Amino acid sequence: MKPHKGEWQLINWIRNRTRLGCRRVPLGPGDDMAILALAREDRCLLTVDALVEGTHFDLSNATPRQVGYKALAVSLSDAAAMAALPVAAVAWVALPEGRSMAFAREISRGLADAARRFDCPIVGGDIVSGRMPLSVGTALVAREAGIRPVRRSGARPGDALFVTGDLGGSLLGRHLSFVPRVAEARRLARAVRLHAMIDLSDGLSTDLAHLCEESGVGAEVEARAVPISRNARRAARADGRPPLAHALDDGEDFELLFAVGPKDAKRLLARSPLKGLRLSHIGRIIKGRRMTLLGMDGRRTPLEPRGWEHFR
Amino acid sequence: MKPHKGEWQLINWIRNRTRLGCRRVPLGPGDDMAILALAREDRCLLTVDALVEGTHFDLSNATPRQVGYKALAVSLSDAAAMAALPVAAVAWVALPEGRSMAFAREISRGLADAARRFDCPIVGGDIVSGRMPLSVGTALVAREAGIRPVRRSGARPGDALFVTGDLGGSLLGRHLSFVPRVAEARRLARAVRLHAMIDLSDGLSTDLAHLCEESGVGAEVEARAVPISRNARRAARADGRPPLAHALDDGEDFELLFAVGPKDAKRLLARSPLKGLRLSHIGRIIKGRRMTLLGMDGRRTPLEPRGWEHFR
Repeated sequence: MKPHKGEWQLINWIRNRTRLGCRRVPLGPGDDMAILALAREDRCLLTVDALVEGTHFDLSNATPRQVGYKALAVSLSDAAAMAALPVAAVAWVALPEGRSMAFAREISRGLADAARRFDCPIVGGDIVSGRMPLSVGTALVAREAGIRPVRRSGARPGDALFVTGDLGGSLLGRHLSFVPRVAEARRLARAVRLHAMIDLSDGLSTDLAHLCEESGVGAEVEARAVPISRNARRAARADGRPPLAHALDDGEDFELLFAVGPKDAKRLLARSPLKGLRLSHIGRIIKGRRMTLLGMDGRRTPLEPRGWEHFR
Repeated sequence: MKPHKGEWQLINWIRNRTRLGCRRVPLGPGDDMAILALAREDRCLLTVDALVEGTHFDLSNATPRQVGYKALAVSLSDAAAMAALPVAAVAWVALPEGRSMAFAREISRGLADAARRFDCPIVGGDIVSGRMPLSVGTALVAREAGIRPVRRSGARPGDALFVTGDLGGSLLGRHLSFVPRVAEARRLARAVRLHAMIDLSDGLSTDLAHLCEESGVGAEVEARAVPISRNARRAARADGRPPLAHALDDGEDFELLFAVGPKDAKRLLARSPLKGLRLSHIGRIIKGRRMTLLGMDGRRTPLEPRGWEHFR
């Protein structure tokens, strides 16, 4: 549908901040659809994500600009999980009644922050308002750009499991400002053959379960190899749960979890293609369907998916 | 982000109803992104639309299945407005707390109704829930498929203005079951050179204003040529406003408004490429920026954009 009056003003505001005329976006916001140039590739990738106040952010400790940033960043993280290159995105905002145009502009600024940083212009949008919590979402088109998309379903027994970065405690703030691992995923895909990959949005234990389910395999994770973030330790001090539990089960790390063959694992351990970002070999893919945690004490216990679920 | 438990069940349900393995969707729902095949075209089109309870539908007289249908149909109508061919769509649902999985499935069924009818599979989605009105949205990818996208900005003085179908009174029911004019737009684009086109979502007077603004032109509409629907007459009897006012200003007709040169206008009037759908020559594009209504009595009055605006 077409923009309404206030929305129209906002779209003009966005339009003036969008680099049009760039080769990749022959037609940007303001018409019925945007036009994207895909550089003669014959496939593209598509994802959609919706964030809602109270579930994915809390306006008492997140600015509207941070919410806008996060809304696009979660879709960019999906592109990273496929090792795809973002092309452009569209966004929608469901604005609580009584919120000002300035508030809506701050959300747009946040979307633009992520768009600029990851070279993924916002090429269209929709705004609705009503008696509702703030909700912001994005749909993103990406392209292969020479790298075959990495699915969740290719992990094989004997593969090594890796994660990027440090895990846990994201809700202390990082979930609003995380860096989608778009460039890192593509660097990894160029260096080795990624059998399967997923981004960590629900928490390592849950996202590993997704990867295992899709691949029809099990996994074994070594507790001492799991990279525990400083925020996981802070969260642990605050609530008494072990730091490891935070690293395994907290959501919204938006790091990458992937499986590679043994030779590629050695290659990555010998020389990581990622500069300044930790790469941890946390375990292995095994036959069957079970997920096991190998504790610090050498004991094996079932690894349960305990990531958060907001929809019941 | 990845699906959560209830969402996962729903996605599996949707997945089982999605024709995968079709050439156009090498990878459907369930991974981080869907993959679309674009038949070696180098451009694609992208749009997004969000519907919210209380503004775009009312659950006291719309079923969740109708809401799902409408959510995809409005994006399909955007594709029609560009004369583009839909490829695939993603959808998100913001579900009010307490609504059942059966309710969510009915929305999916409605989305699937539109997907099937217009050959535009749903390839991914996101679901959130909270204390909020129901909101359903879609983002749609389309392709050119041999027809250059028709923008809003190409109307020229001397062009003839046409609309498809009958206008007004859509809120009496048609807004939930309208037929996006995808096939009709492409038939028109093959028959004549469309200078500018828009779909009627905000009402003829407002959408014509958008088309004029984007094209930098004015327009003159003949009152007696405006196709007034039966529902516009019913609505007029109910509220006392003239049927013409309903046809000019009611939103959500989702018919096409377009401008063509004089020779093409004659061609269309001599032989319409649309079977069983009225095509009306309602006026002309003029120099300047004014929109004028030529009344039944021959008097000219300003035509004001009075379509509905839900965002202020």
